[in-house]
Amino acid sequence: MSLASDLLANLLARADFFSGLPQQRRLYEAAKTAIHQHHLGAGTKLPSSRDLARDLCLARNTVVAAFEQLSNEGYVTSSLGSGTYVADLAELKPIDDPRTQIDNAEVVTSSEVAPAAPLSRRGAHITAFAAGPRFEIQPFVPGDADFTHFPFKLWQRLQNRVWREARSELLDYADAGGFLPLRLAIAEYLRVSRSVRVAVENIVITSGTHQSLDLCAQLLADVGDTAWVEDPCYWAARRVFEACDLVLHPVKVDAEGIALAAEDLATDPRLIYVTPSHQYPTGVVMSLARRRELLDVAVRKNAWILEDDYDSEFRYTGRPLASLQGLDADDRVVYMGTFSKILYPGIKIGYMVVPSALAEPFKIALYDLQRPGQLMVQAALADFISEGHFTTHIRKIRQIYGARRELLRKTLVAQFGAQFSQRVSISSEESGLHMVVELPDQVDDVALEKLAAESGISVKALSTYYLKAPARRGLLVGYAYVTPDKIVYYGKLLAAVILSGVR
Amino acid sequence: MSLASDLLANLLARADFFSGLPQQRRLYEAAKTAIHQHHLGAGTKLPSSRDLARDLCLARNTVVAAFEQLSNEGYVTSSLGSGTYVADLAELKPIDDPRTQIDNAEVVTSSEVAPAAPLSRRGAHITAFAAGPRFEIQPFVPGDADFTHFPFKLWQRLQNRVWREARSELLDYADAGGFLPLRLAIAEYLRVSRSVRVAVENIVITSGTHQSLDLCAQLLADVGDTAWVEDPCYWAARRVFEACDLVLHPVKVDAEGIALAAEDLATDPRLIYVTPSHQYPTGVVMSLARRRELLDVAVRKNAWILEDDYDSEFRYTGRPLASLQGLDADDRVVYMGTFSKILYPGIKIGYMVVPSALAEPFKIALYDLQRPGQLMVQAALADFISEGHFTTHIRKIRQIYGARRELLRKTLVAQFGAQFSQRVSISSEESGLHMVVELPDQVDDVALEKLAAESGISVKALSTYYLKAPARRGLLVGYAYVTPDKIVYYGKLLAAVILSGVR
Repeated sequence: MSLASDLLANLLARADFFSGLPQQRRLYEAAKTAIHQHHLGAGTKLPSSRDLARDLCLARNTVVAAFEQLSNEGYVTSSLGSGTYVADLAELKPIDDPRTQIDNAEVVTSSEVAPAAPLSRRGAHITAFAAGPRFEIQPFVPGDADFTHFPFKLWQRLQNRVWREARSELLDYADAGGFLPLRLAIAEYLRVSRSVRVAVENIVITSGTHQSLDLCAQLLADVGDTAWVEDPCYWAARRVFEACDLVLHPVKVDAEGIALAAEDLATDPRLIYVTPSHQYPTGVVMSLARRRELLDVAVRKNAWILEDDYDSEFRYTGRPLASLQGLDADDRVVYMGTFSKILYPGIKIGYMVVPSALAEPFKIALYDLQRPGQLMVQAALADFISEGHFTTHIRKIRQIYGARRELLRKTLVAQFGAQFSQRVSISSEESGLHMVVELPDQVDDVALEKLAAESGISVKALSTYYLKAPARRGLLVGYAYVTPDKIVYYGKLLAAVILSGVR
Repeated sequence: MSLASDLLANLLARADFFSGLPQQRRLYEAAKTAIHQHHLGAGTKLPSSRDLARDLCLARNTVVAAFEQLSNEGYVTSSLGSGTYVADLAELKPIDDPRTQIDNAEVVTSSEVAPAAPLSRRGAHITAFAAGPRFEIQPFVPGDADFTHFPFKLWQRLQNRVWREARSELLDYADAGGFLPLRLAIAEYLRVSRSVRVAVENIVITSGTHQSLDLCAQLLADVGDTAWVEDPCYWAARRVFEACDLVLHPVKVDAEGIALAAEDLATDPRLIYVTPSHQYPTGVVMSLARRRELLDVAVRKNAWILEDDYDSEFRYTGRPLASLQGLDADDRVVYMGTFSKILYPGIKIGYMVVPSALAEPFKIALYDLQRPGQLMVQAALADFISEGHFTTHIRKIRQIYGARRELLRKTLVAQFGAQFSQRVSISSEESGLHMVVELPDQVDDVALEKLAAESGISVKALSTYYLKAPARRGLLVGYAYVTPDKIVYYGKLLAAVILSGVR
């Protein structure tokens, strides 16, 4: 058994290593982890797929498929007849990559001990799978909003009014779940707009959805507990749950939303993470029957439903749907929202509506673990909402985004032409910040994503949001922050890229 | 075996339940958890210490000591001859405590399933041990700074200058470790003032020390890994590490700082959390010999040292000491600081200086897990520092705090009188935001803390900062934000409380 086989076998032997996922995925993850941790250094020759399959007791097809994915993503290179080699990650990252210094540092410092990776297992995992920092904003990144429409002057005026009062208590940490006037304003907004059943006591202001999810994972689940997530799934929820060492159990999503099967019901989740208003990323709206079923299952399983209502404000036709939380008679739903999409990302204010039984523990733990602050910003935001600017702003950007969506759709459809209408389709729901261009199953959407990037276009392959095969193929195309002229220009470019892949 | 014995035995059987800590502590934690989760309801009669000792295979002394601590903290009450009963937590919390509604909610909702606690094990633990939300600010809370001296007008001017530019990119999330000009300003400040070896690439801006610690725990340690912490220890570090499911190994602190013994060296930490400039809470400064030893041990153990330099700016005589990080030739130290103490708590900006090998992974994970923002605030802060206002402000509040410290010391000493000078002493280091009034070993400092609270004084018992006996007795008294007239008035009251306990 070669060193590489040995290494991968060790990783795969860990019970917690992507447990529950297909072998192909687990092998792929193991190799990626070993490469990122420099256990498999650049230039290392990997065993042949035949040898590796034998060493790891896997089907050869499984190994070949994992190798293929690694090769697609640049982790390994292979030349016909000579074998497969670990790629040089430093070459993938032209900037001075400190990870390449790790080995040297260890040679110097740890002469007496066995060299070890600088990061923990979860640390290596978190960084290996991170979406990575954002560089220049390019057209069509899904999920981005256009915050150039943020009313700078108005906000500055409200902010100055708060600061002029020089209330030093607003410089302190935020306790008791956040600034009361802001919690009142949010409660009023949610009651009217989102049919959320809410008393101000149930509102907890966090510094955004990441922090809301983190708090739920820490307070409602233990290490090794299972969380049901939609498949495909919002990447941030996945990352936060993984960082809290939960076991993710992907549940299929169909045209009615999350679709529980017998194999799902055989597991016992502590958390069920869903995006019922507008499934991320497919855009599907969860049907009423499924909502009722999910609430029922949550009661029977004694699980908590985390309803992430991340962009329901952006519904371009008709009224936004009522929340799942509004249907919940049994207090099993934690509802969460954010101001990042509507106002601006860096505001770092989100909120949760928690069942009464959780209100006090959540407030205590939030204060203890995260020490929230930014009361001056919370005060300005409270005024912004209660004086009506918030709904005005939503109306304004909803119009802008709706028009951009329609322009992008028309641009793409015109380029696709009639001959492709059977093979390429555009998600039809009239909401959100992105659309999904759905592609035939045999199309390699990851390759298309890369091809698009070469034209300066950032779209995301639908298949990468899946935890479990079979992944549907498609591209997520964000339109909200792209100006009309760019939508037309880059829309045509994007259509050409897509057609080159479908042809 | 009684139900209560059974319940506690189950908790103690968990390998991860406060593993490594003394049996007395584990039993105490188990009982507290069971009480908070309502598994041991109010009024439940506990088995006698003799029976419990037999059922749990513990020494009877161990059980008695755990009972005593529970009784001291109000979790159980005992009446002579009739036994020990679980106290009513609702009575301890006169406000509408949602935890008392939990049982009712479950009766309604989960008729088909066994009732379960709403929180996870770690969630229950986090909330049970939380310092709790802060209500009215009372004199002498340790660690609080006086942010009424914050230059509101100046800050507003800098803030408006930033907002007037209406740079929409400053509304986005903060990637790449934070706003570059702020990272440059911090690097310059740390080099000059704190002898920290730092390049701007090594600086990562977080939303404060809680978030810095959380990131270190997630990236550098796995579930069940050991973290060495000082004993006594800063509570927030403890909470954050526990929430990340690390095993805390307390290391004794003596007059030279953290004092490693053979039993400590027998464990293998991944993290070593220290406050070398000004040990929290004792105020001890780590000696140079100990610093060298610790760096050496970190290399041999392949562990990371987390140096929390939380308040070194507040040194009233002489220059602040150089940082531990400045001595580190092997890149084993993560240095962390915060602006919460110097500027204002709610600003939510802290920073880490990480070794080069960690810089890129930390930036990636920070962006992925926490999505930092507040670039507008970061920009205003960068100007505040680079235009010299920061050092001016430090000088100003350092004078104010130094004078308050001296006034409090004089007030207490005058009240204590000569007859107590042998029994009560005041920590002598001239720095920080609090002093420690050291008390004889037989004094119940927790009782004194409660007594002081009845006079409207919030001090903290030194013994509660210890993870492991023998705890030293004393009171932490914060003076930084208390105005001189209040220092004299409440100082006399506090002295009377202390004398009543020592007499």
